[in-house]
Amino acid sequence: MDQPIDFRSDNVGAAAAEILKAITAANDGPASSYGADELTALVQQRYSALFEREVFVFAVPTGTAANATCLAVSTPPWGAIFCHASAHAHTSECGATEFFSQGAKFVPVDGVDGKIDPIALAEATVQAGRGDAHRSQPATLSVTQATEWGTVYSAPELDALTAIAREQSMLVHMDGARFAAAVATLGLSPAEASWRRGVNILSFGVTKNGGLLCDAIVVFQPDLARTLSFRLRRSGYGWSKMRFASAQLLAYIEDGLWLRLAQRANLLAKRLAEGLGQNGGRLAAPTEANEVFVQLPGEALAKLAHRNILVQPRGGGFVRFVCHFDLSDDDIGRCIDALADKAQTLSAG
Amino acid sequence: MDQPIDFRSDNVGAAAAEILKAITAANDGPASSYGADELTALVQQRYSALFEREVFVFAVPTGTAANATCLAVSTPPWGAIFCHASAHAHTSECGATEFFSQGAKFVPVDGVDGKIDPIALAEATVQAGRGDAHRSQPATLSVTQATEWGTVYSAPELDALTAIAREQSMLVHMDGARFAAAVATLGLSPAEASWRRGVNILSFGVTKNGGLLCDAIVVFQPDLARTLSFRLRRSGYGWSKMRFASAQLLAYIEDGLWLRLAQRANLLAKRLAEGLGQNGGRLAAPTEANEVFVQLPGEALAKLAHRNILVQPRGGGFVRFVCHFDLSDDDIGRCIDALADKAQTLSAG
Amino acid sequence: MDQPIDFRSDNVGAAAAEILKAITAANDGPASSYGADELTALVQQRYSALFEREVFVFAVPTGTAANATCLAVSTPPWGAIFCHASAHAHTSECGATEFFSQGAKFVPVDGVDGKIDPIALAEATVQAGRGDAHRSQPATLSVTQATEWGTVYSAPELDALTAIAREQSMLVHMDGARFAAAVATLGLSPAEASWRRGVNILSFGVTKNGGLLCDAIVVFQPDLARTLSFRLRRSGYGWSKMRFASAQLLAYIEDGLWLRLAQRANLLAKRLAEGLGQNGGRLAAPTEANEVFVQLPGEALAKLAHRNILVQPRGGGFVRFVCHFDLSDDDIGRCIDALADKAQTLSAG
Amino acid sequence: MDQPIDFRSDNVGAAAAEILKAITAANDGPASSYGADELTALVQQRYSALFEREVFVFAVPTGTAANATCLAVSTPPWGAIFCHASAHAHTSECGATEFFSQGAKFVPVDGVDGKIDPIALAEATVQAGRGDAHRSQPATLSVTQATEWGTVYSAPELDALTAIAREQSMLVHMDGARFAAAVATLGLSPAEASWRRGVNILSFGVTKNGGLLCDAIVVFQPDLARTLSFRLRRSGYGWSKMRFASAQLLAYIEDGLWLRLAQRANLLAKRLAEGLGQNGGRLAAPTEANEVFVQLPGEALAKLAHRNILVQPRGGGFVRFVCHFDLSDDDIGRCIDALADKAQTLSAG
Repeated sequence: MDQPIDFRSDNVGAAAAEILKAITAANDGPASSYGADELTALVQQRYSALFEREVFVFAVPTGTAANATCLAVSTPPWGAIFCHASAHAHTSECGATEFFSQGAKFVPVDGVDGKIDPIALAEATVQAGRGDAHRSQPATLSVTQATEWGTVYSAPELDALTAIAREQSMLVHMDGARFAAAVATLGLSPAEASWRRGVNILSFGVTKNGGLLCDAIVVFQPDLARTLSFRLRRSGYGWSKMRFASAQLLAYIEDGLWLRLAQRANLLAKRLAEGLGQNGGRLAAPTEANEVFVQLPGEALAKLAHRNILVQPRGGGFVRFVCHFDLSDDDIGRCIDALADKAQTLSAG
Repeated sequence: MDQPIDFRSDNVGAAAAEILKAITAANDGPASSYGADELTALVQQRYSALFEREVFVFAVPTGTAANATCLAVSTPPWGAIFCHASAHAHTSECGATEFFSQGAKFVPVDGVDGKIDPIALAEATVQAGRGDAHRSQPATLSVTQATEWGTVYSAPELDALTAIAREQSMLVHMDGARFAAAVATLGLSPAEASWRRGVNILSFGVTKNGGLLCDAIVVFQPDLARTLSFRLRRSGYGWSKMRFASAQLLAYIEDGLWLRLAQRANLLAKRLAEGLGQNGGRLAAPTEANEVFVQLPGEALAKLAHRNILVQPRGGGFVRFVCHFDLSDDDIGRCIDALADKAQTLSAG
Repeated sequence: MDQPIDFRSDNVGAAAAEILKAITAANDGPASSYGADELTALVQQRYSALFEREVFVFAVPTGTAANATCLAVSTPPWGAIFCHASAHAHTSECGATEFFSQGAKFVPVDGVDGKIDPIALAEATVQAGRGDAHRSQPATLSVTQATEWGTVYSAPELDALTAIAREQSMLVHMDGARFAAAVATLGLSPAEASWRRGVNILSFGVTKNGGLLCDAIVVFQPDLARTLSFRLRRSGYGWSKMRFASAQLLAYIEDGLWLRLAQRANLLAKRLAEGLGQNGGRLAAPTEANEVFVQLPGEALAKLAHRNILVQPRGGGFVRFVCHFDLSDDDIGRCIDALADKAQTLSAG
Repeated sequence: MDQPIDFRSDNVGAAAAEILKAITAANDGPASSYGADELTALVQQRYSALFEREVFVFAVPTGTAANATCLAVSTPPWGAIFCHASAHAHTSECGATEFFSQGAKFVPVDGVDGKIDPIALAEATVQAGRGDAHRSQPATLSVTQATEWGTVYSAPELDALTAIAREQSMLVHMDGARFAAAVATLGLSPAEASWRRGVNILSFGVTKNGGLLCDAIVVFQPDLARTLSFRLRRSGYGWSKMRFASAQLLAYIEDGLWLRLAQRANLLAKRLAEGLGQNGGRLAAPTEANEVFVQLPGEALAKLAHRNILVQPRGGGFVRFVCHFDLSDDDIGRCIDALADKAQTLSAG
C-alpha cells in the first residue's frame, strides 16, 4: 500500500527541525524556574520587536489554553462573547471557555465563508440587552483568523468588526491558531494584522504550523496582562522549566521561520484547491490559508482511501484537507492524481 | 566568579538527554493527533507493565495540572481534601485545586517531618461533619510522596493513612511530583509504592527528575479515568501533537532511566546532608529523597553566596538545597567546602 | 388616569392570600432550623402524595435557582443541555446554569410555538459528537412547560422528546416555572404531566402563580437527590428558617389552590386572546396557558398606554400579555375595550 | 413533659410580627418585578439614612448568600481571604465562598475569644507571598461581628485590623450575621460600627434576629456594587417578587425594631450567662452578644435534657446557648433553675 498522506489536520504534521533543535539547545546548565530564565525574558523582547510595540507574551500548552485564558481575561463570568457560529472555541473545546470564565456565554453570529457578518454582529450586540441583569452582557468579540473555513479576513473586514466592538465597549480577541497562515496571505506585518486592527489579545498559534508543545498568548493591552501570571499558574499552565517552551517560541519566529512555514503550507493548499477544482471538487469557500473545504464527486472518498490519502469528512458532504509545511509537492500531486484516476492509468501503463 | 551551583530547586536542573532525544525521534512522519497516535498507545502499555496492572495514563503539562485534575476527579465541589499542612497543592498552586474542583476545600493536617500524623488524620476526618450539609464532605486523602520536607513515607506509614481513608470512604491521591525519589529510597516496586498501598490516583512527576514539559496522571481505579478525556480537553491540556509528550513519558521510564536519575539525585542529597551536618548545619528532617532542609550557622548564607552557590531560604532560618541528577560530585564538594571555609584556605594556600 | 392594569408578567401579580396566611401561621414557637422542622417533613409527604410516588422536594428562592441547580445535577461540566432556542434558562438567566454547572453548554434547538421539534432534537443529538472529547457531551434535555410562547406540550409531544433523550442516555429536566398552567390545560395529573412522561427532575414554579419568595425542585430519580443538600447549602439557598418556605409550598398545593389559581389565569388569557384576535391582533402562537403573544395593529400600543395598561413589547412587533389570577374580569374587558376604542365611545356617551 | 425551650440557635426562634405584617401588607396590587418596585427603592433610601451615607443594598435569601457574594466581589479567584479560624464562611458554609469566588482561599488566623489577633493577621499577610504566582494573593479581610464566640470587637479592635488590611491594599468584609447584636452592645451608630471602621462591604444579618427569609448585602464602596445585579441574577438570588423581600428589610429597621430585638436577645444572654456562671458553668468567652459558650459541670446536660431544654453541644465539652428575642424571662429562669436543681425542689414542695 502507498505511504499515507495525511491531510486530516495540521496537527498530524511534523515539528520544524529548528524548533526541535532549540529545545535541545536550551538544555544548557541550570536556569531559573517558572519563567525567570533568560530565554523567557528574550521572548518578551523578540515578540515586542516582532509586533512593533511592547507586548506581553505567555507560553501555554495548547490553543485551547490560549483561547480559554484570553476569553476569561476579557470577559466577566456574566459576559457574552460574540463569535462566528463555527468558532473553534465555541464548537470544539468541550466548554473550556465556559469553564475558565466561570460561565460566560458564546453568542454565535452567522456570516458566509466562516466570517462574522458585520451587520449580523451589530444586530446581535444591539439585541444583547446591555444593562439587563437577565442577560449575559456584551464583553468580547472573538474573531478567528484564519477562519474555520480556511478564509482570511481582510484588513477592512477586521476593521468593520472591531469598530462595532469598540462602539459597544467590547474587547477584541483573535483566535490566531492559524495566525501565521493569515499573515502570510495578507502580506501585512504582524502589527498590521493584529493590534493595529483593534485586537486587544491574541491566541498566537504555533503548534499547527510546525510547533509541538506550546502556543502563546500575546497581550497588547497592558492591564489585561496584569493578572495573567496568577491565572496561568492556577490553570496548571506554568511550566517550571519554562525555558523549554520559550525556546520554541523564539525559534518559531527567528529569521521568519513561522512565515516561511506558513507560506509553504498555504502554497500547497492553493495548488491542492486548484487541482481538486479541476477534478470535480466544489470549494465550500475560497482557499486563503492552508485549509481546503470541498465537496467531492461520488467516488472520490473511496479513491482517496484506496491511495491511503487521509482526509477529514465534515457534515454535508464536505471534506477538509489541511496542508502542513512538511507535505511534499509530490504529496499534492499524488492526491490530485488519485482523484483524476491517473494513478490507475499509470500503474496500468 | 565561580560558576553557579544551583540548589534552589530540581526545576533549575537539566532535562535528561534521553528524553530530549526521544522528542526529536518522535518527529517521524505524520501521526494522528490528540493522543490517537502510536506512542500514546505505547504509553498505556509500558506504564501498565511498570505498575503491574492496567493503568490509565494521561500526559499533562505540569505537576499542578496533575494535582488539580486528580483532586477534581476524586473530590466533588462540596468535598474536603485532607493533606499535610505543607502540601504543595494546598500552599503553592495559587488555588488551582479549588478552581478545578469548583471549590473543594483543603483540610490541612499536621505531622512531623512533612508527614501526615495518622492520629491527627483520624481525628480530622471524625470531626469533619460527615452528612452535615454545612461542612465540606470528606472525599480525598492527598499524600505527598516524597514529602515537602524531603522525607519518604514508609510502606507501613502509608498503609496506616490509607486505611483511615478507606474506612471513611475517601479516595487516596498521591502527589508524586517526586515519586521517583521516593521509590528509589523505598526500594519497592512502583506498584508496591502506590496502588498496593491503597493509592487510587497518582500525580506522576517527571519534570523535577530530568523531564521538561510534561508530567502525568496515573489512574489505578478505572471509573476515575472515565471522564478524564473530557476534563483534560476542557482544561486546555490536550496537546494536539500528543506524541511529543508521550515520547517523554516513554523515555523517562525506559530501561529504568527515571530510577537512575532519582538515585543519583538522592545520593547527592545524602552526601550533601552529611557534609552540611558536619559543618554546623542542623537538619530539619531526615534526608530521604533529593531535598535537604537545614538550619545553617551564622555566616553560612554569605559564604554560599560568595561562592555563587544558590539555595532557597525558607522561613524560620531554614534553607532548602535541592539536588538534581545533573549536579556533579564536585558541586557537592564545593558546597561543603564553602561552608567549611576550605575554599579560602585553599586559595590562601 | 385609570388604575394600571399590569400584564407585563405574572411576577407583577399578587401573592395568594392563602400562602401569606400560611407564612404567618408558621410562626408558631421554636422549630428546628435548616429544614429539620415538621413543616418541611410534611412537604415531602404532601408532594409525594401529589405526584403519586416518593419525590424529593427542595425549596429554593427562585426559578433560576431551581433551573440552574437541576441542570447542574443532571449535567456534568463537560455536558450539553438541549433546549428550545427560547428557553428562559438559556436566554434570560445571565449564565446561571453555566455558572452552577461549571461550564456546561446549552444547545438551542428550534421548533414552532416555543416547542422543541423532535426531528431537530434527534438530529442535534446525533451531531453532538458523543465520545468526542472536543465536544460538550449530550447530558440533559430541558423542556419548558408551559413553553416560553404560552403553549403547552401535549403528552404525546413530551413522549416523543423524552424518548429521544432516553435513547441518548440523557436525563430530562422540565422547567416548570408555569407547570401549574400546563397541568391545568392538559387536564392530567401532576404525575402524568411529569415523571410518567419521562421527566427526571422538575423546576416546580410557585412564584408566577400566586407564590412569593420560593419555588421548588422536585426530584423523581432518587440518586439525583443524593447530593442536593450539599449543593443547595453551598449555593446559599439553604434558609435556616426553612419552615417559612415550606409553609408556602404546603399552602400552594393544599386543596388544589395551585390549580385553581392557574385555571383562573389561563381562563383570563383565553378570553384576552379572543378579544385581541377580534380587534386586529394576530396571535404568535396558540394561547394554551396564561400568556398571550400577539402582533397588534398600528395604534394599539398607544391605546393601551393611554388607558394605563402595561404590556411587555417583544422583538419583531410582538407584545406579551401575561395573565395572573388576581386580574379581574373587568381588567380583561377594559383591555379589549381599549383596543376596540369602546372606552372612548363610552366616555363620550 | 415541659414545653421545650430552644437555645440551639437563633434560627429556631420566631419571626418578628412586624416583619410578617409587612410581608402581608406588601401584597397591595401589581408591582414591577425584579426589584424595580417602590419598596425596593425605599430600601435604598432608608438604609442610606440608617448608615448616614449612600449605600447599595441587595436582599439575598441567606447569610451564606450574602457572605459568598460579598467575598466573590472583593476577592479574585486567585485571592486569599483572611478570617478567624472559626469564621462561619470558612467552617460552616460547605465551600460556598470557594464556589462563588471560583476558588479563592481562606487563610484562617488565630486569636482568642473568636477575634482575629492583629499581630497574627499582620504576620499572615506578610507571609502571604504577595506577587508570588504560586500563592493566592491577599485580597480581603473578613471579620465576623459579633464573633462566632459571642464576643464583640470594640471600635479600636476593628480599627487595628482594618488598618492592616488597608496597608496591604485589602478590602474589608464584615460578616454581620449578628451585626444587630454587635451594634446593640457597642452603642455605636451603624455607620460607626461599619464603614467608619473601614468596612467596605457588609453581610447584614436579618434572619437570626427576627427575620425569616432574607438577609442583605450592604455595599459602602460604590464600585463594588457595580456588578452585583448580574452576580445576584446568575446566582439565582433575584426574586421576581422582590417587594416581599424588601418589605422585610424595611420593617426590620423601622422605628429601631432591629436594635430592640437585638437588645432583648443580648439581655437574655447576659442574664443566662450569669446564671450559668453561678451554677458551675465556666464561660468560654465573655458574653457580649446573644450567645453563651460555656463548659458545664458533669450532670448538666442530662438536667437540661430532662427539662426539655435544647442546647447545642460543641467540641471540647462546650455547650452553646443562643438567645433570641422571643424567649421569655421565665425561659431563662427555668433554664438556670434546671441546672440548680431548683425545679425538683419546687415540684417536691
